Amino acid sequence: MDYIIGVDIGTTSTKSVLYDTKGKVIAYANSGYQLYQDIPDMAEEDPEEIFGAVLETMGSVIRKSQVQASEVKGVSFSSAMHSLILMDQNDRPLTRAITWADNRAAKYSEELKENGLGQQIYQKTGTPIHPMAPLSKILWLRHEKNNLFRQTKKFIDLKTYVFFKLFGVYKMEYSIASATGMFNIFKLDWDQQALDVLQIDRNQLPKLVEPTDQITGLKSEYAQLLGLKETTPFIFGASDGGLSNLGVNAIDSGVVAVTIGTSGAVRVVVDKPVVDPDGKLFCYALTKDKWVVGGPVNNGGIVFRWVKDQLFAPEKITAEQMQVSTYDILTKIAQKIPAGSDGLLFHPYLGGERAPIWNAYARGSFFGLTRKHTRAHMLRATLEGIVYNLYVVMLTIEKITGKPKSIRATGGFARSALWRQMLADIFEQEVSIPESFESSCLGAAVLAMYSLGYIDDLSEVKNMVGVTDTHQPNYENSKIYRELLPIWIRISKILEPEYKAVADFQKKHNN
Amino acid sequence: MDYIIGVDIGTTSTKSVLYDTKGKVIAYANSGYQLYQDIPDMAEEDPEEIFGAVLETMGSVIRKSQVQASEVKGVSFSSAMHSLILMDQNDRPLTRAITWADNRAAKYSEELKENGLGQQIYQKTGTPIHPMAPLSKILWLRHEKNNLFRQTKKFIDLKTYVFFKLFGVYKMEYSIASATGMFNIFKLDWDQQALDVLQIDRNQLPKLVEPTDQITGLKSEYAQLLGLKETTPFIFGASDGGLSNLGVNAIDSGVVAVTIGTSGAVRVVVDKPVVDPDGKLFCYALTKDKWVVGGPVNNGGIVFRWVKDQLFAPEKITAEQMQVSTYDILTKIAQKIPAGSDGLLFHPYLGGERAPIWNAYARGSFFGLTRKHTRAHMLRATLEGIVYNLYVVMLTIEKITGKPKSIRATGGFARSALWRQMLADIFEQEVSIPESFESSCLGAAVLAMYSLGYIDDLSEVKNMVGVTDTHQPNYENSKIYRELLPIWIRISKILEPEYKAVADFQKKHNN
Ligand SMILES: Nc1ncnc2c1ncn2[C@@H]1O[C@H](COP(=O)(O)OP(=O)(O)OP(=O)(O)O)[C@@H](O)[C@H]1O
Ligand SMILES: Nc1ncnc2c1ncn2[C@@H]1O[C@H](COP(=O)(O)OP(=O)(O)O)[C@@H](O)[C@H]1O
Repeated sequence: MDYIIGVDIGTTSTKSVLYDTKGKVIAYANSGYQLYQDIPDMAEEDPEEIFGAVLETMGSVIRKSQVQASEVKGVSFSSAMHSLILMDQNDRPLTRAITWADNRAAKYSEELKENGLGQQIYQKTGTPIHPMAPLSKILWLRHEKNNLFRQTKKFIDLKTYVFFKLFGVYKMEYSIASATGMFNIFKLDWDQQALDVLQIDRNQLPKLVEPTDQITGLKSEYAQLLGLKETTPFIFGASDGGLSNLGVNAIDSGVVAVTIGTSGAVRVVVDKPVVDPDGKLFCYALTKDKWVVGGPVNNGGIVFRWVKDQLFAPEKITAEQMQVSTYDILTKIAQKIPAGSDGLLFHPYLGGERAPIWNAYARGSFFGLTRKHTRAHMLRATLEGIVYNLYVVMLTIEKITGKPKSIRATGGFARSALWRQMLADIFEQEVSIPESFESSCLGAAVLAMYSLGYIDDLSEVKNMVGVTDTHQPNYENSKIYRELLPIWIRISKILEPEYKAVADFQKKHNN
Repeated sequence: MDYIIGVDIGTTSTKSVLYDTKGKVIAYANSGYQLYQDIPDMAEEDPEEIFGAVLETMGSVIRKSQVQASEVKGVSFSSAMHSLILMDQNDRPLTRAITWADNRAAKYSEELKENGLGQQIYQKTGTPIHPMAPLSKILWLRHEKNNLFRQTKKFIDLKTYVFFKLFGVYKMEYSIASATGMFNIFKLDWDQQALDVLQIDRNQLPKLVEPTDQITGLKSEYAQLLGLKETTPFIFGASDGGLSNLGVNAIDSGVVAVTIGTSGAVRVVVDKPVVDPDGKLFCYALTKDKWVVGGPVNNGGIVFRWVKDQLFAPEKITAEQMQVSTYDILTKIAQKIPAGSDGLLFHPYLGGERAPIWNAYARGSFFGLTRKHTRAHMLRATLEGIVYNLYVVMLTIEKITGKPKSIRATGGFARSALWRQMLADIFEQEVSIPESFESSCLGAAVLAMYSLGYIDDLSEVKNMVGVTDTHQPNYENSKIYRELLPIWIRISKILEPEYKAVADFQKKHNN
């Protein structure tokens, strides 16, 4: 039999899944690692630890499934975007991997926005100007860690690091490259203006390849360790966002993937690169002919978790004793409150926000409280607020890509029927829930199947992914949400000028 | 021995206290009554029920203390402001007593504001244009219950009703009159423009008397029932706000009384009537030469109660088992959070608001939430928000009366040392807590002592009221509050335009 391995190098863990060529899961392995946050705003990971997790999980699925080396026809990779590692002249890391969540470059992304260069560069790269992007990070390092900057032979990302370890070459595919902030998505090449602003040379960046490109010549030590052949083709793969769209079969035009995990995202696939005049959306490559337009949202399920921990501690104990999920109990409580939470509005910006407002200083708020509101109203308002925020991202996307035709919802929140229905009601769209298990791994594997000729078209993924639930909008509820949304949007605008003041206070007083 | 009875006709109960002429409490009685809220925005009371409570509590203190009828040298009254009763040609009530909390006249007070008449009238009456005031209520009744309006012989208040029952005459003293919105505080007479706007005649209003004026000739049935003589002088007394200032010895210039009970108020006594150019403060008579300037706040301890009930239900159970007050436990929890609640700001407008913003549509909000904020932060932010709001009232008062010299704090919240200290820190003033027991009853009794010649000056109240606690501002904390206050004030301004939208939604959907 033929098998494909899909590996997803995530922010908190690496997952490997071994599939047959119909996309059926044969074996799964997962290995977590540490996030280093030694100082405020830092969010780093150890590249060696991650490389270890890649080896461990790949080895594990091969062993567990007892497949022969020759039966593994390809290995393909998904990874988180925006990571940055500085490599020295001897090809040793000068830094840990600085992840998307690292905020230390904030000053420099602000600068790029203020001096107008950011907007110019965005219009070519499709990467919003933000500390997450390697563009801002390299600028920060040049100014504040010039010593490291000057010793750098190559600026790479985690996936490039893994390929370098396995094959000894520095190659980066378009998808990850398109999220660096330095890649011209219209020319499929590094952007000279970006490099000039950073004062770096294109030789300091990896060679560009296509996501579907293959590489062979796996170092023998790793071939042996993993139980693979040196000739097994590795496919470069793509970034996790786009591959997740692929893995849940949200690649047809007008099919929008909405994810609420810890964070959230709204993404839609289009044929050609497009950028947002306001610089609020990303456009990242999935392949040369498939581009993912969307917005990443910091405040997803993590906000639900906060409300659970802060306002529903007693229910946690009850849930433990009932041996059910606290989230399930809370969902039942929220269900009893009418749509619109009796006019209580919540802005979920507990951790600053990326899309749709791109404001690191943003903070959360409840508005519209009366004495009739209960803790359960606050809960429902929280869930609604998270979805309103995603809907505002959708409104921005619509302007470029047109009205959606349907929504595919994934992430931890999709476990809640209430929340899924809320999504249908607020978006006023049919929402379907794909059978989804490690959708980025599946996306990577499907990309490999295409590269290796098992399928002729990526759309064949539709035969691999079923649908578990479908929700139609309840128009009674939609009507209520339509009354509240304009207020919700206006409030997020009028509060905007005050976010920085309170964030500055919080920073000064060390919270 | 000589004794004086002070009676306070409050919104929820009537209290009578029998004092000796040094202000020592000899006997106390209290009798509650129902608030009728048959339909939204209604808040009525039954005048007969209240008259019953007056008789019951007066009779009770006389019986309990076993004083002789001849030893009671005077009876004096405090009462809640703004109540309205329509009396027919046969001197029977056409309505219940419509209390200050009744909001049905909102449309008409809005109208008065919009057509500019309100501002003109306020500048002469010192009563903010608001549905609480009889001015707005009579306008509403003329338009929406014209049948009742046309049958009305007299428009009176609860205290006038009680005096009418006891003595058969319609007399209203300046203090209650000055809170009707129809009394010219500079001329000490009904305001012709107000009467014209209402299309009523001055004969339809009670005869005006001074607060210190006496009346005798108690109807024999009541003299008998109460154990008083028909010749016992009754002093008309004043309204509860001013008498409470008197009763806590906050009548010297610059001494500010801050009350947080269910609702709240900031009040300072001045020599002459003054009005606020912006119409945001009241100026009510206490006597002819003492005027109370200040602002009433809807959202006081009732907001603390809401937070307790909604977010601290488990602590309520613990408190019951510990046999302590839940408020005491919550105070200890709030104490652990640093001043400024780590940048979490709360606007306490759960029940619309009177001073300082005079916006019936106002709603509560939390602003500045991060994931580091806990339920305890929300609690502390709530207490701080209530005090910030009172401080903003103080800032408005300061503009007319100058900087305060010290603060006297009363009401349920004064039971909490944390909250008292917060008041000192936010106001940046010494806060002292008067020994206070039914301060409005004491105020009424002191007014009687003055009227009857037991004391030469109201300021002799100082010998009757001690101080239980004093708090000096903690400047570390004050500094933090000074950083947050401008943000708090700006946010209350920028949210203002959105209150109506969300209040309209809530009204439409019947919340
Ligand atoms: N039964 C449930 N009902 C509703 N929401 C749930 C349920 N279980 C989990 N969630 C939500 O999903 C979130 C976690 O989602 P998920 O399991 O996808 O996390 P994650 O993998 O850490 O997220 P990410 O993919 O962003 O890293 C939780 O914080 C919670 O808000
Ligand atoms: N121990 C306490 N500590 C702090 N606040 C308290 C305490 N007890 C009561 N309160 C507050 O005082 C309010 C009641 O105030 P009070 O003056 O007794 O009421 P009212 O205004 O109805 O006369 C409660 O709603 C609560 O917020």
